Amino acid sequence: MLKTIAYENQQLYILNQNRLPEEQVWERCDSVEAVAAAIRTLRLRGAPLIGVSAAYGMALAVRDYTGAAEGLAGHYAAAERLMAATRPTAVNLFYALARMRTVFETAAGEPPEVIFAALLTEARRLQQEDAECNFRLSEHGQALLPDHANVLTICNAGALATCGCGTALGVIRSAHQRGKIEMVYACETRPLLQGARLTVWELMQDGIPVTLITDSMAATVMNRQRIDAVIIGADRIAANGDTANKIGSYGLAILAHSFGIPFYVAAPASTIDENTATGQDIPIEERDPDELRRLGERVLAPPEARVFNPAFDVTPHELISAIITEDGVFWDFGRKVRS
Amino acid sequence: MLKTIAYENQQLYILNQNRLPEEQVWERCDSVEAVAAAIRTLRLRGAPLIGVSAAYGMALAVRDYTGAAEGLAGHYAAAERLMAATRPTAVNLFYALARMRTVFETAAGEPPEVIFAALLTEARRLQQEDAECNFRLSEHGQALLPDHANVLTICNAGALATCGCGTALGVIRSAHQRGKIEMVYACETRPLLQGARLTVWELMQDGIPVTLITDSMAATVMNRQRIDAVIIGADRIAANGDTANKIGSYGLAILAHSFGIPFYVAAPASTIDENTATGQDIPIEERDPDELRRLGERVLAPPEARVFNPAFDVTPHELISAIITEDGVFWDFGRKVRS
Repeated sequence: MLKTIAYENQQLYILNQNRLPEEQVWERCDSVEAVAAAIRTLRLRGAPLIGVSAAYGMALAVRDYTGAAEGLAGHYAAAERLMAATRPTAVNLFYALARMRTVFETAAGEPPEVIFAALLTEARRLQQEDAECNFRLSEHGQALLPDHANVLTICNAGALATCGCGTALGVIRSAHQRGKIEMVYACETRPLLQGARLTVWELMQDGIPVTLITDSMAATVMNRQRIDAVIIGADRIAANGDTANKIGSYGLAILAHSFGIPFYVAAPASTIDENTATGQDIPIEERDPDELRRLGERVLAPPEARVFNPAFDVTPHELISAIITEDGVFWDFGRKVRS
Repeated sequence: MLKTIAYENQQLYILNQNRLPEEQVWERCDSVEAVAAAIRTLRLRGAPLIGVSAAYGMALAVRDYTGAAEGLAGHYAAAERLMAATRPTAVNLFYALARMRTVFETAAGEPPEVIFAALLTEARRLQQEDAECNFRLSEHGQALLPDHANVLTICNAGALATCGCGTALGVIRSAHQRGKIEMVYACETRPLLQGARLTVWELMQDGIPVTLITDSMAATVMNRQRIDAVIIGADRIAANGDTANKIGSYGLAILAHSFGIPFYVAAPASTIDENTATGQDIPIEERDPDELRRLGERVLAPPEARVFNPAFDVTPHELISAIITEDGVFWDFGRKVRS
């Protein structure tokens, strides 16, 4: 399986996802500031991977602390704020920070190297848990797909977004291992093209048949090809089942509904945020207008053009056929919770 | 009004639309081969403009003929085939070629310079007719918009696609002149970004408020902003009202339907092709996979990625609220024709 992050020889390394698909570049990313910057700039991306990366970052914050013992709690809290401010939507980030804080507080008073060791162990545990979650939800999810399945997905909810086989792409991998995948249609996922750059590349690495389309071709593909399911990942699932995911997911859900195609969300159970009642309560990150106006040096629109650039949208639970987690497949999730 | 094509000083000049929005470059495009190449490479694009350009190209074919008189008909037919093969979907191309052929056949036996003069006059007439059509359909269409209208569009159905004020953007211009436009949301229109490059630029030139979004943001914009109408152009309208237009239009129509937003097609009546019974009979151009895999030198996806790249889709007439032509507004066009 593709790896995305590794703590080896007492240093943290990451696969720089902004360099894909052109080159596989592993970079040292060995401080809390470096991890925060990597998340902000999307060298590390994908909700589950963001969570695990943040956990490693917190361990590094303690490892690198050289001040007096009484200053450690304040230093840790500042590092936590830095990390929490990187990206607002994926709840995995806050889940991981909460897990790490519990360990930090439990170890309070121990020598710094003991606290660091406990935090590093917890980060590794989160990484391992993610891999196991991926595998279990993928096994649950693949059972939903028929033979000769044509599946449509958006963004990258794969090995590159996680620490295992992926969520949406994990389901596809498990189905592929059983010979059930005829074709995956990958929406390119503007503006940052995670579908074109990452999903297509990742599936091709594994020999899984994949066809790249623009996001705007989904209706035609649903109408002309026999699409058996749309499967997406999730950045945050509200308590009622409303799901924040990459911009474009909501539109795909409406299209799938109109064509009678099942629409599945695959995510670790930790993505379900009981503290967020509905999708309206999920903070949606708006990103730099230049993501639409430029691509590298290339001008795509007038430099002074007004732009609306939300990175995510919210699919209401009514449009979600089932939520696939490591604990099983939840049909009518929102309605079940609300009743 | 922006100009797109001009025959001046006995030479044909075009505005190279591939250079927009970075530079306004007028180029000499002064042979039938040069016009065909400009259409194929999208330096000239937009269904009505393709038609007028092809008409000028046919006049140039006769102007530049130096062979024996008895060879002219064969030369003309070859030029016609060259032009007809440039792009298959927009019916305006074939409409213009038919108009030019009638003139050519009527003038048969006259000296070449007389035939050329007749063809040039007809090309100029087509250009003038297009400008008048644009204006009249825009006046009809603007009456459909309320005050403080928020409108969403895709691709460029503007001055840059025509020889006048545009079709979809003509309607928007007429409404803007009456102070009725609050905001135009322009879908960037992957893969070739005619929305970002052309529509945003064109509307900004005229001081019409415009916000650029990715195609995948349409559902969010329809849900969060008060969108009063989606207005698109058309490359071909079948006899039953099914409409071929830029890829992505079909998805927008489904979204608009699900949000209860009117969906309008604005086009010259000559876009209605009585010889094409339904949308299934409209040929859909598939373009180079590299339009999705690369942007200039920039790699967007693995070079060997499988790609599906239809340039157009077909919106079934049931999803079209009205078709706006110079002859008026046709509600339930398809149902009317079929009954």
